[in-house]
Amino acid sequence: MRLLPHWASPYPRQHLGSDVLAGVIVTILVIPQSLAYALLAGLPPQIGLYVSIFPVIAYALFGSSMVQAVGPVAITSIMTYSMLAPIAAPGSPEYLVLAATLALGSGLLLLACGLLRLGFLAQLLSRPVIAGFISGSAVLIVFSQLKYLFGMTPAGSDAWHVISALFTQGRIDAGTLIGLTAIAVLAFSRLGLTGLLGKIGLKPASTAMIVRLVPLFVVLAGTAAVIGWNLDHRHGVAVVGSIVEGLPGLNLFLPAFAELKLLALPILLMALIGMVQNISMAQALAIRRRERIDANAELVGLGSANVVSAFYGGMPVGGGVSRSAVNVAAGAQTPLASIISALAMLAIVAGAAPLFARLPLAVLAASIIVAAISMIDLRALRQAWDYDRADGIAALGTASGVFLLGLEAGIGLGILFSLATLVYRTSTPHIAVIGRIPHSEHFRNVERYEVETIPGVIFLRIDESLFFGNLDAVESRLAGELEKAGDTRDVVLIMSAVNRVDTTAMEVLSDLNRELAGRHIRLHLAEVKGPVQDRLTGTPLWNELSGQVFLSVNDGYEALSHD
Amino acid sequence: MRLLPHWASPYPRQHLGSDVLAGVIVTILVIPQSLAYALLAGLPPQIGLYVSIFPVIAYALFGSSMVQAVGPVAITSIMTYSMLAPIAAPGSPEYLVLAATLALGSGLLLLACGLLRLGFLAQLLSRPVIAGFISGSAVLIVFSQLKYLFGMTPAGSDAWHVISALFTQGRIDAGTLIGLTAIAVLAFSRLGLTGLLGKIGLKPASTAMIVRLVPLFVVLAGTAAVIGWNLDHRHGVAVVGSIVEGLPGLNLFLPAFAELKLLALPILLMALIGMVQNISMAQALAIRRRERIDANAELVGLGSANVVSAFYGGMPVGGGVSRSAVNVAAGAQTPLASIISALAMLAIVAGAAPLFARLPLAVLAASIIVAAISMIDLRALRQAWDYDRADGIAALGTASGVFLLGLEAGIGLGILFSLATLVYRTSTPHIAVIGRIPHSEHFRNVERYEVETIPGVIFLRIDESLFFGNLDAVESRLAGELEKAGDTRDVVLIMSAVNRVDTTAMEVLSDLNRELAGRHIRLHLAEVKGPVQDRLTGTPLWNELSGQVFLSVNDGYEALSHD
Repeated sequence: MRLLPHWASPYPRQHLGSDVLAGVIVTILVIPQSLAYALLAGLPPQIGLYVSIFPVIAYALFGSSMVQAVGPVAITSIMTYSMLAPIAAPGSPEYLVLAATLALGSGLLLLACGLLRLGFLAQLLSRPVIAGFISGSAVLIVFSQLKYLFGMTPAGSDAWHVISALFTQGRIDAGTLIGLTAIAVLAFSRLGLTGLLGKIGLKPASTAMIVRLVPLFVVLAGTAAVIGWNLDHRHGVAVVGSIVEGLPGLNLFLPAFAELKLLALPILLMALIGMVQNISMAQALAIRRRERIDANAELVGLGSANVVSAFYGGMPVGGGVSRSAVNVAAGAQTPLASIISALAMLAIVAGAAPLFARLPLAVLAASIIVAAISMIDLRALRQAWDYDRADGIAALGTASGVFLLGLEAGIGLGILFSLATLVYRTSTPHIAVIGRIPHSEHFRNVERYEVETIPGVIFLRIDESLFFGNLDAVESRLAGELEKAGDTRDVVLIMSAVNRVDTTAMEVLSDLNRELAGRHIRLHLAEVKGPVQDRLTGTPLWNELSGQVFLSVNDGYEALSHD
Repeated sequence: MRLLPHWASPYPRQHLGSDVLAGVIVTILVIPQSLAYALLAGLPPQIGLYVSIFPVIAYALFGSSMVQAVGPVAITSIMTYSMLAPIAAPGSPEYLVLAATLALGSGLLLLACGLLRLGFLAQLLSRPVIAGFISGSAVLIVFSQLKYLFGMTPAGSDAWHVISALFTQGRIDAGTLIGLTAIAVLAFSRLGLTGLLGKIGLKPASTAMIVRLVPLFVVLAGTAAVIGWNLDHRHGVAVVGSIVEGLPGLNLFLPAFAELKLLALPILLMALIGMVQNISMAQALAIRRRERIDANAELVGLGSANVVSAFYGGMPVGGGVSRSAVNVAAGAQTPLASIISALAMLAIVAGAAPLFARLPLAVLAASIIVAAISMIDLRALRQAWDYDRADGIAALGTASGVFLLGLEAGIGLGILFSLATLVYRTSTPHIAVIGRIPHSEHFRNVERYEVETIPGVIFLRIDESLFFGNLDAVESRLAGELEKAGDTRDVVLIMSAVNRVDTTAMEVLSDLNRELAGRHIRLHLAEVKGPVQDRLTGTPLWNELSGQVFLSVNDGYEALSHD
């Protein structure tokens, strides 16, 4: 075990300046989203600042990406909210414990996956499924925030409850005006500001920086408006509220077994989504920068960030798209930028956090809504639909599953769809009945060549590896051939193209052997590859095989034609 | 649409006698398990008799298996109980509605899958995962029944609650004695009776029938004991209780949207497990009988059985291992046997059901426990572990997931494990850097042959189809080669072995094209197969490709060596 992470031994001195500058800029720019995503997760907003300190340092020390920035992100926050809100009242002490338990559990799981070198798991979901999941979640996020804009308390966070609350309780007040103004400003900053600044002659770099400063400006302006007109006391505008001054202590807790069990599924799903999102983004960032990431180190980094978060702040964190973009744009070169940013955040929490006490919640809701809308990726859904109908169905199914049935069922559907498209594509292996080309030792498909066959013997060549998803095709093809051929006494499976036989396939073949034996038909194998043969030795299939194992198809042909 | 199912047009007259006899025998033999599995599902036991009537007829008309028998089964019953018990009190009116909604929802889903020809979905889970799921569920079932033996009311149905209740509330009374006696008799009938009867010279066929009669004998003896000694009134032995005489009416209800949403995940999982279990068993039965099943017809049959069950009785049904075994052993030849059995059950429900009012619950619990223990398949888990470690981990992981985290998380884990083993096995495609054999048009792996290469150009041959699970390998191999080669200006991907490029792969290649272009490296493709080329045409990858598409590797080699 090395004492210093690889990027710090030795640390490239020439990057010191840009890393420090980037760290400070990032801290200031991510304040609004840190507060907002904690609110989205159903937690006190300042928690978002807390978890931007030590978890960030943990990731910088153990992760492998040079510029990825972790912290509170939209997806893990909406997952936290929608998985915990049915169990405990958001913001209650019980809810805080559950959120910390969720971070701890998923952190430990990620850590374990990283140490066991299970990084390949990050590829479990296909891109259309991920796009569907994120788009569906984004719509859920938008609906979850409307309550802050229209001063209502819907009975549930889903679309139906929110819409019905909108009609029965929704009201337009000072908070609504602040929120809608914030949305308008933020939307303009994303859509029109760059063009406008370009027209008045600003350089692209300065333009980008100004655009990124808008959220902070909106937060400051909103807070100023509340303070200036005393909106919270006089007009009842909801604000962040009392923030404990100074630093929170370490919260060393041991989760109860009952809670861990209750949160088993949420923990599993949180780890899976965190893994998928973090690694795919780190990979994209690395290729652009001609670097490589190590998926297992990424999991260790993300896992330790979440474990640290559980004890200091207490909400799940992930690799953030916009955080990382800000980090890259501000010129970060190594994870030192993240460490500087964490230290700067520590200073802000220690000294300046109370400034946010009178920040209106409607402004945070506005920034969440604008960010969420930009996450809805209709183009990706459309593209998947056009390119491959099965992927399109998977994407749309996952998106509507998330929206209509909730996040847990939605991810469940996404995993099912990933598996189903994979099994669907490989469930029809090429299988040929073959015969011998007269006066030769060559064997070919009986449907395409003039070949000779032995009455009562079927030679079946399987042209793909055997696994649980394609055995039905083999079984029903064989059943069909047996029906067609009438009296059969021997079946020879030619395994020259079979590289793997999984447990299911071994068991199905072994059942098949027994069932054919019951019908007085012998099952033979031919041209079994070395590794497959090694594995099959000693299995029921091998021990009880009613026929023989032929080295070549021709050996089998000769032996069976003289029977 | 034909009016009569295929087995009845024309109906083979010679089977009439054996079908009628089998139908009557099956009815009598499945009474104990029908009552028991309804109890297991948290429903009044007589519901088990009701759903052995019309759902059975629906399956006989629409299914494709000749001898599969549907009805209440252990797995769907424990799933019903463990998914609904946290939402409503078992046996309450609300619980009955939820159980019927579960049957309706999963029935409609299965019906839809059948009509959309999605039968391949039954292959989604690997055998080790299924074995793990069933074994884990069986342990859950045993724990769920202990309350009837030891007169306790645990706060939850899982092992921890049951064990702690056993120590705090468990008592040994007349019910315990009846239950333990029943377990002893049933266990002996399964383990020792066949041998004993064989020794005294009985024929195997008579032996088998006597063994199958034991559960009915135990039920009758238990009821007789209660009636004879008035155990229910005098010693408080829990019995089935009042059974409404005659037939229940059709219960035509429309489930509320809120309930459907609440049950979304349970419905999905119930349909998946029903599908997997039913089709794999029907397949096994069919091969043994030289018949073929149609997976889509199976889904339609199972789906209609559940839809009918929702309106008449109201619990999910499935294809039962022991039901079907009894059916085959009793000599059934066509689904007419099931129709006869349904009619016989109708007669029993109309006339004889009140006889079961004083049947002790401990006897039903005993028969559930004995059946569940026989479902624990340690041999399958052991075999998977020995044969293929990944499958072994999947089996054990699923089993312990079910036991420790509950059925929903357990199935979720099972699906994840199936996907993970599949992705794991295919996530490392063979990729070779190739060069040209001097003075030829042949290209070979640079590591194995003396070949010539072009400085600044990398030829990469990918030997497998590209999908979401193996792109990381392609990307990181390419990144490694780029790092090794230093100054590279061209990368050629040779696609001669690539039969499919899924949406994820297309997007990743298209991102790769853009990222390489940003580094002034051109990406070329060579030997793209026709179907792949058709699909890629018009995609961002094709439109924005920085390099060319070469018909052959040699074309590319010639073109790039003169650049």
